[in-house]
Amino acid sequence: MNYSLKSMIILVSLFIFACYQKPVDTQTAEYGIVIHGGAGWITEGKLSKEEENSYKAKMEEALRRGSQILSEGGSSLDAVAETIMMLEDSPLFNAGKGAVFASSGENELDASIMEGKNLNAGAVAGVKHIKNPIILARAVMEKSPHVLLAQEGAEAFAVEQGFELVDNKYFFTQGRWDDLQNAKKSEQSGNDQSSLINEKEFKFGTVGCAALDKDGNLAAGTSTGGMTNKKFGRIGDSPIIGAGTYADNATCAISATGHGEYFIRNVVTHDISALMEYKGMSLNEAAELVVNKKLKEQGGNGGVISIYKFGNVVMKFNTPGMFRGFMLENNEPQIKMYKN
Amino acid sequence: MNYSLKSMIILVSLFIFACYQKPVDTQTAEYGIVIHGGAGWITEGKLSKEEENSYKAKMEEALRRGSQILSEGGSSLDAVAETIMMLEDSPLFNAGKGAVFASSGENELDASIMEGKNLNAGAVAGVKHIKNPIILARAVMEKSPHVLLAQEGAEAFAVEQGFELVDNKYFFTQGRWDDLQNAKKSEQSGNDQSSLINEKEFKFGTVGCAALDKDGNLAAGTSTGGMTNKKFGRIGDSPIIGAGTYADNATCAISATGHGEYFIRNVVTHDISALMEYKGMSLNEAAELVVNKKLKEQGGNGGVISIYKFGNVVMKFNTPGMFRGFMLENNEPQIKMYKN
Repeated sequence: MNYSLKSMIILVSLFIFACYQKPVDTQTAEYGIVIHGGAGWITEGKLSKEEENSYKAKMEEALRRGSQILSEGGSSLDAVAETIMMLEDSPLFNAGKGAVFASSGENELDASIMEGKNLNAGAVAGVKHIKNPIILARAVMEKSPHVLLAQEGAEAFAVEQGFELVDNKYFFTQGRWDDLQNAKKSEQSGNDQSSLINEKEFKFGTVGCAALDKDGNLAAGTSTGGMTNKKFGRIGDSPIIGAGTYADNATCAISATGHGEYFIRNVVTHDISALMEYKGMSLNEAAELVVNKKLKEQGGNGGVISIYKFGNVVMKFNTPGMFRGFMLENNEPQIKMYKN
Repeated sequence: MNYSLKSMIILVSLFIFACYQKPVDTQTAEYGIVIHGGAGWITEGKLSKEEENSYKAKMEEALRRGSQILSEGGSSLDAVAETIMMLEDSPLFNAGKGAVFASSGENELDASIMEGKNLNAGAVAGVKHIKNPIILARAVMEKSPHVLLAQEGAEAFAVEQGFELVDNKYFFTQGRWDDLQNAKKSEQSGNDQSSLINEKEFKFGTVGCAALDKDGNLAAGTSTGGMTNKKFGRIGDSPIIGAGTYADNATCAISATGHGEYFIRNVVTHDISALMEYKGMSLNEAAELVVNKKLKEQGGNGGVISIYKFGNVVMKFNTPGMFRGFMLENNEPQIKMYKN
């Protein structure tokens, strides 16, 4: 073999290497669903076995409900809406019935929903008399030319759409009320709102869901009561498309939970999608970079759940725990709360 | 030259081509500022020469003010806030004094601001008694742990911060009032809100600014009165980080104007930044793809103005016109309104 031939072989190898593309993904599940029920300082021993079982049972029930819709050929949008509605109706999570109290002593709820096939989206912020904000968010998407409606205006739209308004007292739970009193006491003793947020005891309750249906369509949604003792009409990331919720059939469907301000500034759910679409990252790599590097370096606590267009699921968080679970096709639901 | 040598030369050329990287950008301006005053069906002949001159004069005044701050070593954040404040104080643009009327007959204003060096951001939505919403957005960023405050809550925060509330009547202008009456008449004759939005006469007023300072820091801001006859506490893209406003020292600072719902669903300003950062596009290529392909294909009318970290400016729109201008270093301001 002469010298130039050897060089040629080396160059051909280099050229092939330079042109190397990642192998095309393969379908891991025809349909599937993934949920979260908030991230935070959820560590073993904090909850009683009974409490643990309540959370697990409700998450399993919600996953099975969503999965049933998908198995029967229902849309990912229906599965996401129904699953989140079930979590909203439980007092366990900071959304719907179990929403935390704002500083005013009332509950102010936010939600959003998005369809990956057409990038349609709907959201509501600061509603006080809507039993299931996720259903109102869906109505905003489907029945109005708008994406985001806030406060009394959103409720006027709800009435026009035939929603029944509930008394704000519907959202009363003793535990959340006690949380507000404790937050106010802490505030009076000189801790400002921002120190309260950084308090290690803080739990970012929120519920979220992402799903892939048999038609290959993705959808995601998020619903929350926001932060205990929130003031000034504060809006977090949950009703913001690209921050708390994002879905694009070209990449994935994602719902986030955490310290909302960081999630807004980092446009977290759109950033994960963009890293996949523009940089060729896997969903796992993209979520890892955003949650465990970008957010973590800034002190932005929280996590995301997501399902990829080919059916694999990613659940990432940088807090000690996150209520989470998924169910792929007819497999048993997988539910976790702590780091491992 | 033998055969294998020829092949080698071809392969070396191919290899070099495969490994070709775009040349590193060079600084085109040490500092600079770019503004918009809304996009829409702004075509020659619609405005009188006198009106044209009023718009041009105000845009020039605002650019010179912002540029002066930058030339004296001031921050891009100061330049953006002061420039937008000047546009808000003019009755010509749909922001501050010249804001359009909501369906309620009141003016509801939105604004946001963002710093590229630390991704800090602040925003307000639906305020009715704040003369300069951009300054309140800045206060949210600098004086609160939050990013987005809405309606009465945002105004309570303003009062706490020493802002003076103005009567909503401050925002009255006869032209905008007449616009509302016309919109209501059109609605009564059967045109729903969505057909109103698609009306070719519709003008998306909003003001925005992006700047690069001598320290290499970027900032962007946006302020608007939203849509004439808006209902239900509708929030558009202007106060949404990643939709109406985005700034990252790693890429660019951007402000958008247009049919807000499309800008929210497409996470427009973050998408442009992500295309640059993750796909290596130039600012011009990224803005062209998002504004003239993605948005245009969906029927999402509007535009963006942006300044790159190395000082070049891009102004893109898919409507017949956009009030726009820029000023780089000590060069004369460049101001345009129509397509060419």
